[in-house]
Amino acid sequence: MTEANRVVPAGGPRWLPAWLQQYRREQAIQDGIAGLVVTVLLVPQSLAYAMLAGLPPHVGMYASILPLLAYAAFGSSMTLAVGPVAVASLMTASALAPFAAQGSPEYLSLAILLAVLGGLQLMVLGILRLGFVANLLSHSVISGFVTGSALLIAIGQLKPLLGVPAQGHTAVELLLSLLASFQKLQPATVALGLLAMLLLWSSRRFLADLLAWIGVSSRTADLLAKLAPMIIVLLSVGAVAVWQLDSRHGVAVVGTIPQGLPSLQLSWPAREQLTSLFLPAFMIALVGFVESVSVAQSLAIKRGQRIDPNAELRGLGAGNLASALSGGFPVTGGFARSVVNFAAGAQTPMAGVISAALMSLVLLGLTGLFERLPLAVLAATIIVAVLGLVDLATPRHAWQYDRADALAWAGTALGVLGLGVEAGIGIGVALSAGTFLWRASRPHIAVLGRLAGTEHFRNEQRFQVETQPHLLIMRIDENLFFANSAAVLDRIEAELAKRPATRDLLLVLSSVSHIDLTAAEALERLHADLGARGIVLHLAEVKGPVLDRLKHAGRLRGLAHEPFVSVHSAAQALGQHP
Amino acid sequence: MTEANRVVPAGGPRWLPAWLQQYRREQAIQDGIAGLVVTVLLVPQSLAYAMLAGLPPHVGMYASILPLLAYAAFGSSMTLAVGPVAVASLMTASALAPFAAQGSPEYLSLAILLAVLGGLQLMVLGILRLGFVANLLSHSVISGFVTGSALLIAIGQLKPLLGVPAQGHTAVELLLSLLASFQKLQPATVALGLLAMLLLWSSRRFLADLLAWIGVSSRTADLLAKLAPMIIVLLSVGAVAVWQLDSRHGVAVVGTIPQGLPSLQLSWPAREQLTSLFLPAFMIALVGFVESVSVAQSLAIKRGQRIDPNAELRGLGAGNLASALSGGFPVTGGFARSVVNFAAGAQTPMAGVISAALMSLVLLGLTGLFERLPLAVLAATIIVAVLGLVDLATPRHAWQYDRADALAWAGTALGVLGLGVEAGIGIGVALSAGTFLWRASRPHIAVLGRLAGTEHFRNEQRFQVETQPHLLIMRIDENLFFANSAAVLDRIEAELAKRPATRDLLLVLSSVSHIDLTAAEALERLHADLGARGIVLHLAEVKGPVLDRLKHAGRLRGLAHEPFVSVHSAAQALGQHP
Repeated sequence: MTEANRVVPAGGPRWLPAWLQQYRREQAIQDGIAGLVVTVLLVPQSLAYAMLAGLPPHVGMYASILPLLAYAAFGSSMTLAVGPVAVASLMTASALAPFAAQGSPEYLSLAILLAVLGGLQLMVLGILRLGFVANLLSHSVISGFVTGSALLIAIGQLKPLLGVPAQGHTAVELLLSLLASFQKLQPATVALGLLAMLLLWSSRRFLADLLAWIGVSSRTADLLAKLAPMIIVLLSVGAVAVWQLDSRHGVAVVGTIPQGLPSLQLSWPAREQLTSLFLPAFMIALVGFVESVSVAQSLAIKRGQRIDPNAELRGLGAGNLASALSGGFPVTGGFARSVVNFAAGAQTPMAGVISAALMSLVLLGLTGLFERLPLAVLAATIIVAVLGLVDLATPRHAWQYDRADALAWAGTALGVLGLGVEAGIGIGVALSAGTFLWRASRPHIAVLGRLAGTEHFRNEQRFQVETQPHLLIMRIDENLFFANSAAVLDRIEAELAKRPATRDLLLVLSSVSHIDLTAAEALERLHADLGARGIVLHLAEVKGPVLDRLKHAGRLRGLAHEPFVSVHSAAQALGQHP
Repeated sequence: MTEANRVVPAGGPRWLPAWLQQYRREQAIQDGIAGLVVTVLLVPQSLAYAMLAGLPPHVGMYASILPLLAYAAFGSSMTLAVGPVAVASLMTASALAPFAAQGSPEYLSLAILLAVLGGLQLMVLGILRLGFVANLLSHSVISGFVTGSALLIAIGQLKPLLGVPAQGHTAVELLLSLLASFQKLQPATVALGLLAMLLLWSSRRFLADLLAWIGVSSRTADLLAKLAPMIIVLLSVGAVAVWQLDSRHGVAVVGTIPQGLPSLQLSWPAREQLTSLFLPAFMIALVGFVESVSVAQSLAIKRGQRIDPNAELRGLGAGNLASALSGGFPVTGGFARSVVNFAAGAQTPMAGVISAALMSLVLLGLTGLFERLPLAVLAATIIVAVLGLVDLATPRHAWQYDRADALAWAGTALGVLGLGVEAGIGIGVALSAGTFLWRASRPHIAVLGRLAGTEHFRNEQRFQVETQPHLLIMRIDENLFFANSAAVLDRIEAELAKRPATRDLLLVLSSVSHIDLTAAEALERLHADLGARGIVLHLAEVKGPVLDRLKHAGRLRGLAHEPFVSVHSAAQALGQHP
């Protein structure tokens, strides 16, 4: 569908993305403004998220250039801003912890490998058109996962924020470790960190209103407020320089950033690295893809555009490969950054291209600015950003609407906090799929009778119907498969036990669009068991494809009749109905 | 249901199991014969499966006494034979490998802990009446798992069979390791092992027919053939003794077996042992339960009895706790042994009680007989037993009937062989649930029109129907949930794109018995999106419980109308139909 939207008659060569073929000058101005605004937001975020991933901060800047170009070439969203994001960075740190120490060259090369693997996996899914995988996670699970991750990130960042040593992969471990080292608090770091957090939080909360109140247009006010993080970062760098906070008061800073653009990296990984990182890379890529598609979709809807999940897979896959090529780590579409890009008026991925160019300029000339940036301020940036991801509305709605969804939310969030990100997402997926299987395993089954004087048969519990002692008619209102075939047989036995005169059992399969092997075998067993007790099994209203498959596999040979076309014709053929 | 079957007016006190309250003398004779036959089979099997689990062989005998009594008290099958089995033993070895060396006292105490944990988990599931968990595994997955495990066990047993050192947890590792140590073959061990295997295999294959041919009744012939393993075991012990194969030719034998009954064991495990063994214990317990229930069920059906999955959970749970108490390891209902028990005429769990008594006598007085039993002969016993579990009929049927089931079989079997038992079962469950989600994510959706001159509305692709340009009627034939809500929205958009004159969209939910939160939110978004484009969303034939839930959570406030009771009334109310 998106392809159709995008390919319209236009000027540029056909191998260019559709948006580029018909690019107009007005768009360039809007994209330019958006690109600038996003870059100002991106610089501190990229440094911060690299730190969160356990990598040198400048690696975050490396991961913020080529991926934007790659996404522009392959993606389908006009406004998604790709780059390092909080949750993927947390997952990167968690995936690499067992294999290498943070700060070692091995750690960096494994982070690059994660991006390569994730990029290839997304590419393959995209080429196979498997965008469907995004649907494996329910909204409750995604919300619970993001909320749990945000809290885990915030707790983890208390360590650089307060300048104390702490370690652990779960919320409890981190908090205990923080408490144990509470006497090692560094006053200057704590003061700087808390002040930065206060400023960031209040600018996020009040600055836009304040600017609007002094007469700035509300859209401009919103955008200016988004620049606050950069201003606070620069102020903190100034404070470190003026008061020598780093050398005199022990405030940890970013340190030397290699100037210049990243060199292209290519190296051949070991086989055991590939096998042990395959699954973590897939988790990071999948979660990133799901998050990214939902952001892209919600922004696209506002402008009446559409997102093609398969193009997104290819775009994000290319982005990750590009990140790896330039020595970066896993990237995806970021929530906050994409919203800013959209609000700043981005019209096409050209905004991202401009961002990438501006980021290159920063790397070529301005890295010195950030060398005395306190880590505590980066931690404050992260904490304020991720607390915005905490979503308590979804569990509230879920609780009102469907307790199973609320349980999936809570299980996922608590799983992330208590057992770590991988376990959390595993729990979430298991709870989603488990709930669904559990529901499907308790199918609705109705015993039918005839509405007097008609050809219609209805549930005997809800209608006044005529039944006959020798004929039991049951309608199964769910696909038949491994998780419910035992329940169906149990229910049939229970109904037969209540009606000892039964000689014919008619199963109405009007709602069954699939019967799997386990259920087909169960039906055959039922047929044989009933036969041994003198009861004949009949089927009615079997859907075409279901019948074809059963017949093709020779599964219906034992039945006395072909399945009946309707319950009415079955009841007539089975005799006693007038 | 089973409870109802079992509790009939009878003589014994009410706290006894129902079968014991009405126990008769004829039953005692039949149970006695079955108990004796099973014991003769059980002695070599229990030694062999303990070796397979990496434990001293006599531990297998310990695990073959109390569990039978516990199951007799709590289980619901009249013929299931509980004790050490091949697959659970393999899983035990695989679960413990990372934590302790085979043969260490720690290893044994961890094996006991596995039985405790699994026993408690089964008990809790049984008390909560969650017998439903047996349905989480489709028939294809169980068959693939058992087949893969059987092959993996057989390959692993080549090591003691040939008397060469080898190690590894996957089929490939084991085979490579065997090839590498091929020059270390011990001629006497190889000869003994292969001879035992040949005898076991030919007695299994031909002995019953041979005995029948010389005039033994076919039932007796079958039973006598089952005694062959014990005879071969005793012959091999004789051969070792006569030719001094152990001391002169390096043939490994069982070695000293402590005489007497096991002492009761109770010790308190460390917290990290509990957490790391919790999941493996659950896998072993679950797989054992599923296998056991399916054996029990297939035997019960032959005699018109019924199995209560919840009683089975309690019976197997008690069996595992009893095994742990006597220093044993995880047990469950065995396939071959239960079939023999049934064929030998067992009428009640008294057969198991008699088996337990006979096994105690063996432990008290006859252990000396088995001390010079060659490990190669035990390996031959295992290999011949497990090759009988290899099931190639199921994948063949699956291939004919449903490729997805065949894929689940192959994925599970290859996963077990290539990645180990835990990974294999994980892959199987994921493939089962994934296939089901994938199917449900592509719901059948029909565009409806009116059969001319009637009040009936049918799929426009299959019937000659009347439609109207302003009214689009779509029927969704599947529950709405996270995995298919995106697909439903896509299909709706596609139909709307084909019918630009649409002003009213009527969704018919007659087949929808559940809408989860993700799908409910998607419907709300659809309503809002359509509204913005001047299209009104209507619902019809919403089931009572679905409607209640949507209303309770305030999800339908935005709709123009209450949902219509029928498509006909909706079409009338929406105007243009005559």
